[in-house]
Amino acid sequence: RVDGDRLWQSLMEMAQIGPGLRGGNNRQTLTDADRQGRDLFRRWCEEAGMTVGVDSMGNMFARHEGAEPDLDPVMTGSHLDTQPTGGKYDGVLGVLAGLELIRSIRDQGIRTRRPIVVVNWTNEEGTRFAPAMLSSGVFAGIHTQDWAYGRKDAEGREFGAELDRIGYKGDEPVGQRRIHALFELHIEQGPILEAEGKDIGIVTHGQGLNWLQVTLTGQEAHTGSTPMPMRRNAGLGMARITELVHQIAMSHQPDAVGAIGHCDVHPNSRNIVPGKVVFTIDFRSPSFDTQTEMERRLREGAEGIARELGLGLEIEQVGHFDPVTFDPACVDILRRAADDLGYSHRDIISGAGHDACWINRVAPTAMVMCPCVDGLSHNEDEEISREWASAGADVLLHAVLESAEI
Amino acid sequence: RVDGDRLWQSLMEMAQIGPGLRGGNNRQTLTDADRQGRDLFRRWCEEAGMTVGVDSMGNMFARHEGAEPDLDPVMTGSHLDTQPTGGKYDGVLGVLAGLELIRSIRDQGIRTRRPIVVVNWTNEEGTRFAPAMLSSGVFAGIHTQDWAYGRKDAEGREFGAELDRIGYKGDEPVGQRRIHALFELHIEQGPILEAEGKDIGIVTHGQGLNWLQVTLTGQEAHTGSTPMPMRRNAGLGMARITELVHQIAMSHQPDAVGAIGHCDVHPNSRNIVPGKVVFTIDFRSPSFDTQTEMERRLREGAEGIARELGLGLEIEQVGHFDPVTFDPACVDILRRAADDLGYSHRDIISGAGHDACWINRVAPTAMVMCPCVDGLSHNEDEEISREWASAGADVLLHAVLESAEI
Ligand SMILES: NC(=O)NCCC(=O)O
Ligand SMILES: NC(=O)NCCC(=O)O
Repeated sequence: RVDGDRLWQSLMEMAQIGPGLRGGNNRQTLTDADRQGRDLFRRWCEEAGMTVGVDSMGNMFARHEGAEPDLDPVMTGSHLDTQPTGGKYDGVLGVLAGLELIRSIRDQGIRTRRPIVVVNWTNEEGTRFAPAMLSSGVFAGIHTQDWAYGRKDAEGREFGAELDRIGYKGDEPVGQRRIHALFELHIEQGPILEAEGKDIGIVTHGQGLNWLQVTLTGQEAHTGSTPMPMRRNAGLGMARITELVHQIAMSHQPDAVGAIGHCDVHPNSRNIVPGKVVFTIDFRSPSFDTQTEMERRLREGAEGIARELGLGLEIEQVGHFDPVTFDPACVDILRRAADDLGYSHRDIISGAGHDACWINRVAPTAMVMCPCVDGLSHNEDEEISREWASAGADVLLHAVLESAEI
Repeated sequence: RVDGDRLWQSLMEMAQIGPGLRGGNNRQTLTDADRQGRDLFRRWCEEAGMTVGVDSMGNMFARHEGAEPDLDPVMTGSHLDTQPTGGKYDGVLGVLAGLELIRSIRDQGIRTRRPIVVVNWTNEEGTRFAPAMLSSGVFAGIHTQDWAYGRKDAEGREFGAELDRIGYKGDEPVGQRRIHALFELHIEQGPILEAEGKDIGIVTHGQGLNWLQVTLTGQEAHTGSTPMPMRRNAGLGMARITELVHQIAMSHQPDAVGAIGHCDVHPNSRNIVPGKVVFTIDFRSPSFDTQTEMERRLREGAEGIARELGLGLEIEQVGHFDPVTFDPACVDILRRAADDLGYSHRDIISGAGHDACWINRVAPTAMVMCPCVDGLSHNEDEEISREWASAGADVLLHAVLESAEI
């Protein structure tokens, strides 16, 4: 088993960096806080005898040598970046549990045949630069590096320039590392495990995701003196599409979710009818067909709304992945590990996207989850217990050891 | 008649200050651009032989002496501040037409018994600091100066400090100036005069205004992994209230308008269900009863929406005025002036709020309007013709001269 207290202490120490306003974290990707978090992680890895490589997307790979260095390594990890109002565990737990398992096997003098690599993927959250899981996506060949470098934040700063600025544009070409298998531990970010009193979720599938950025163009006009029939109110269009997104998701219950988290209203003045709005729809489903059908209904409905209100309509996909089926052999290894350790568990579908979803395209991959309080995540109040964290890290330890061959 | 070319040239010169992105203006109140606009206006007034006083709200009063300096002056003017994406005429026309009429009577050697004062009221637009018509409101005793000084912009800067910063917190106590009568020229900001081919609108009434700032509090949650029934989506609440506002306004056609121009979504991240939204409803009507009824229906409907979605609801009034009836004698003076000059005219209700609406509470007041292209205002494309501007200024000239007694 891992040292659960040491893991918890590291989690709390990392959470000092990029503190939020109410006890959570604001350590968005490629900010100064992100750099500090990376520096701390690097120091900890080096203190645990690992060598740290950084690729040209800023992905960090801390390598613990195996008895047979030429064998493909087993990889584990997640991400250290957070939402602007994020929790202390989303992503961080998976990275620091990887570090903890290396510390533990060193303490216990365990030697594996294969090397073990603990990874921190850059920009998993996708808030500052869309899409989410950007750098694991480039690693897996989904996006090109050039395209990724050109992604812009709200202030127009480019991903590539910001990566350079924080000193984490590494020399290593992205996507070259061989991977025998990858295991990612993550908090559930949903309510199921806690509600059912399970210690562990064995992730067999991941929901697909579809981010549609909608631009509605109407006409800025005076809110007082412009007669109602003359208005082309882009804000009203957004309101109707928000309701449409909700109705579409509700009609596919429980196999779909949908919401609008981000919007930009122009010119955003109390006495101006909005002339333009840009917002992003987040649709998800574990079913490919449902995902397709939701987008079809959205496009059809949005066109009707825009026509009726006299608005211009553009829809651009700014994030997408198909539903994921994780590697059955890796899933079995995790299930066995939970059984051997005596933890209660159930199979689960991940509602969120994870770096493991992209790596699954290029290497055998699976995920394990621990519960989180009230299913709350992407919220500074996100909470887990020390015991849940330890149990997840224990399962990760056993799976990695089996895969890396003691 | 005034010198229409000189008026037009001054309008174009003022429009150089705080240029917009597409030919309009961004000269928001108490910005550096506002200071530059004020400096230019002051210089022009002094060149036209006037003396400029500034009160403690930054209201500027340029005085042209009368043959009997002890008589109460006739006042005319409007505002030089603009929307963030505003036009070149909204407010500016009224101020510069006042200046032009002084230039004209000097050229023509006309002498009035009463002094004439050309005024530039501070923060008419209300975008940077709510409410609109803030400083004419303090002048008329509607708001206290202390309250006004404490109004904050989106960055938290206070009105009083910003007024100081641009050097326009004057020594003169606000509201002390006596006014025999006030006439304000403004562009219509609506489509009626142009559609009917009228040169001039004689404003008999002004719509009432009601700005309600709504705060909905839900719970930030992950858009992917939070089941639909567990969500408390503040963004969905805003969408439903946006539709409600529209339906309420539509049901009182043509005697009401309503829209939401400004919103703030928290934390505004693509994959976070909005935990909090703050937005402002702008309801207007020329009928007091309709205004009351709209607010009643809004509160009732919003409470139902919040209850159904599990959201906290707060509603705060951040701007308000009752429908206005302008002074019949002043209205008659304007009507006579238009007749004498041979301009076609009709009576009209102002859809927008104006400084004259507040001054009407403390002095005999009326307004005159000229058409604007397609009724478009609060838009950089706001346009008027040189002839419309001249006609409006001519009517203003005649009315001011009659009131100031030649
Ligand atoms: N796990 C997680 O929150 N990932 C961010 C990408 C997503 O929105 O699913
Ligand atoms: N005239 C004008 O645009 N005033 C601003 C206040 C309002 O919204 O009516």
